[in-house]
Amino acid sequence: MLSTDIVDTLFTIFEEIRFMLVEGKHYRTIWPNKALTGVTIIDQTHLPFEFKLRELRSLDDVVEAIKFMRVRGAPLIGVTAAYGIAIALTKNSTNQSLMDAKNKLIKSRPTAVNLSWAVNLVSNQLKNEPRNIRASMAWMLANKIANEDIETNQSIGESGFKLIHKIKKSRINILTHCNAGWLATVDYGTALSPIYKAFKEGLDIHVWVDETRPRNQGMNLTAWELGQENIPHTIITDNAGGLLMQRGEVDLIIVGADRISIDGNVCNKIGTYLKALAAKTHKIPFYVAAPLSTVDLNFQGENNLFDIECRDEDEILKVKGMDASNNLTEVKIGYSSAYNPAFDITPSKYVTKIICEKGIFNPSDIEKALK
Amino acid sequence: MLSTDIVDTLFTIFEEIRFMLVEGKHYRTIWPNKALTGVTIIDQTHLPFEFKLRELRSLDDVVEAIKFMRVRGAPLIGVTAAYGIAIALTKNSTNQSLMDAKNKLIKSRPTAVNLSWAVNLVSNQLKNEPRNIRASMAWMLANKIANEDIETNQSIGESGFKLIHKIKKSRINILTHCNAGWLATVDYGTALSPIYKAFKEGLDIHVWVDETRPRNQGMNLTAWELGQENIPHTIITDNAGGLLMQRGEVDLIIVGADRISIDGNVCNKIGTYLKALAAKTHKIPFYVAAPLSTVDLNFQGENNLFDIECRDEDEILKVKGMDASNNLTEVKIGYSSAYNPAFDITPSKYVTKIICEKGIFNPSDIEKALK
Repeated sequence: MLSTDIVDTLFTIFEEIRFMLVEGKHYRTIWPNKALTGVTIIDQTHLPFEFKLRELRSLDDVVEAIKFMRVRGAPLIGVTAAYGIAIALTKNSTNQSLMDAKNKLIKSRPTAVNLSWAVNLVSNQLKNEPRNIRASMAWMLANKIANEDIETNQSIGESGFKLIHKIKKSRINILTHCNAGWLATVDYGTALSPIYKAFKEGLDIHVWVDETRPRNQGMNLTAWELGQENIPHTIITDNAGGLLMQRGEVDLIIVGADRISIDGNVCNKIGTYLKALAAKTHKIPFYVAAPLSTVDLNFQGENNLFDIECRDEDEILKVKGMDASNNLTEVKIGYSSAYNPAFDITPSKYVTKIICEKGIFNPSDIEKALK
Repeated sequence: MLSTDIVDTLFTIFEEIRFMLVEGKHYRTIWPNKALTGVTIIDQTHLPFEFKLRELRSLDDVVEAIKFMRVRGAPLIGVTAAYGIAIALTKNSTNQSLMDAKNKLIKSRPTAVNLSWAVNLVSNQLKNEPRNIRASMAWMLANKIANEDIETNQSIGESGFKLIHKIKKSRINILTHCNAGWLATVDYGTALSPIYKAFKEGLDIHVWVDETRPRNQGMNLTAWELGQENIPHTIITDNAGGLLMQRGEVDLIIVGADRISIDGNVCNKIGTYLKALAAKTHKIPFYVAAPLSTVDLNFQGENNLFDIECRDEDEILKVKGMDASNNLTEVKIGYSSAYNPAFDITPSKYVTKIICEKGIFNPSDIEKALK
């Protein structure tokens, strides 16, 4: 266990950083309990219907939460996995336990490279340390990764804000796909961080929110987040962006990323690529906002050098919503078989800039940001 | 009223033409009752959950069925409207009644030009005829339009089949958006007609069915139609087509149209344009199948020279499906406001060919087909 002093210091740090709002109260998406035996998360599978917290007290809880997408978004998956190591080592600090945690966590979701980045970072720092300090160190490292995520996202917000600010229009229309908001990170978000900053600075912005089938992260999470912060936004189907761009009703697009190749190709939620093609056609800037931990040193070129995660067909064929009696109900909407790849790859030539914690980069130069 | 002989002849003609199958039985999407006082339709708002027929006995019934999308698809809307005139004139054959029917029907849905084409065709032929034969003539004309629709779609099937057949692959993957099948017409369909023909001719085909949010005509109608005919198919989200094209898993795209400009720009269900852009990028043929009645002589160029129909936000924010007790239930899935344009325009340069009843045309030459 950590000493009370260290725990207090940790929680003081948490309180100094402004969290995003839920019904006027500040929250992170994940935080450790004071006994450092587990973490609390916002269970995102209930949004926007219910705001529910959930405690994760074991490695299995953490793996389940990642697999079941109670936490999702590349940066948050990474942070959650780091806390997962800490939780595992608090119960059992052997090499075997560390190895077991590492393997289970890396296998829990395949696409977000931040997951293996965070797990490897923590386990590499711990494996040669004596067993009695491993758990404490793991908690400190996980907290550090969480806090650095927030700093990273604040930097992304500052840089991305400049790109929004330079558009000289009375109202600036921004399109985003999926959720790369604070719910996808520990706080602030990646793609939405510049939007929060722009709104705070008084720019007249409006966000087109792609609903993002099949899991509707845009409709469920992005619209909810923006609503909590009173930012003007409108939900559209994933099909509508082309028409809006044709009509000049989109000034820029900003999305997150789950994996970025060393030469700037971007793996992100399925459907991103179609929007990037339309943006190129209509000369609309297409920005990707992501921490450098999203860059995969082993991924180069536009081809799928890793397997694209393919999820259950029921994500397409079933939908959850509130029935007339206000009960959360799942309904079956499709009866044929369905194919559900979760990500696609947007080649770097369609990406205008990548916004990361070190600033704004041409996608082909993203390797330089790592140095 | 028509004489019994004429009615019998009409129904003989119906039976000679092969209808598409529903649980092994042949159906059209619309047919008159033998007394020629009304029509029966397949109420498409219940598919794929329930196969329900509905009788339309008044002009108001017809207008409601078009507005509420119990019948939909540009060709079927046109035919239904023609029957609407016949129903109205059967009750009241005055000029005022004809005028009233014409106006109400044209206003019922704004985009499909086949609607005004059919209404104008029937009313122009009737307006100078004596009142006592107007109703009979209207029924004959409506039946003629319905039968011609079937012939048109058979021709489209023959021509489109050649385009599928020339792809030399062991399995041919075809992507389609929305529903341009027999449910969108009287029989056979437009975009799906070549697919039915190819399957009948023994080609090894597989259809990627875009679910087509917000109303899911792909998931609800196209998948259902193809399933009834045992044609291999898989539902995908509207987001997935880009990835499939990147991976070479789409050999051609074929869609219908709601309106085609005189110079070959295609107005079709929202999201069509995004698929056309991706097809161009990946050098995949992008075909549009439609009767010549879809060509709007007043629409030229790529710009919106007519208003794109914008439908209720609840089409996005609510979804209907079967709950765990097998009750058809509507659930609310979104809580922000939504914007719901129903169509977009694919410029002719992204359209490889237009397939119509007169054969296969370059989009810029579609005007020649009209001569």
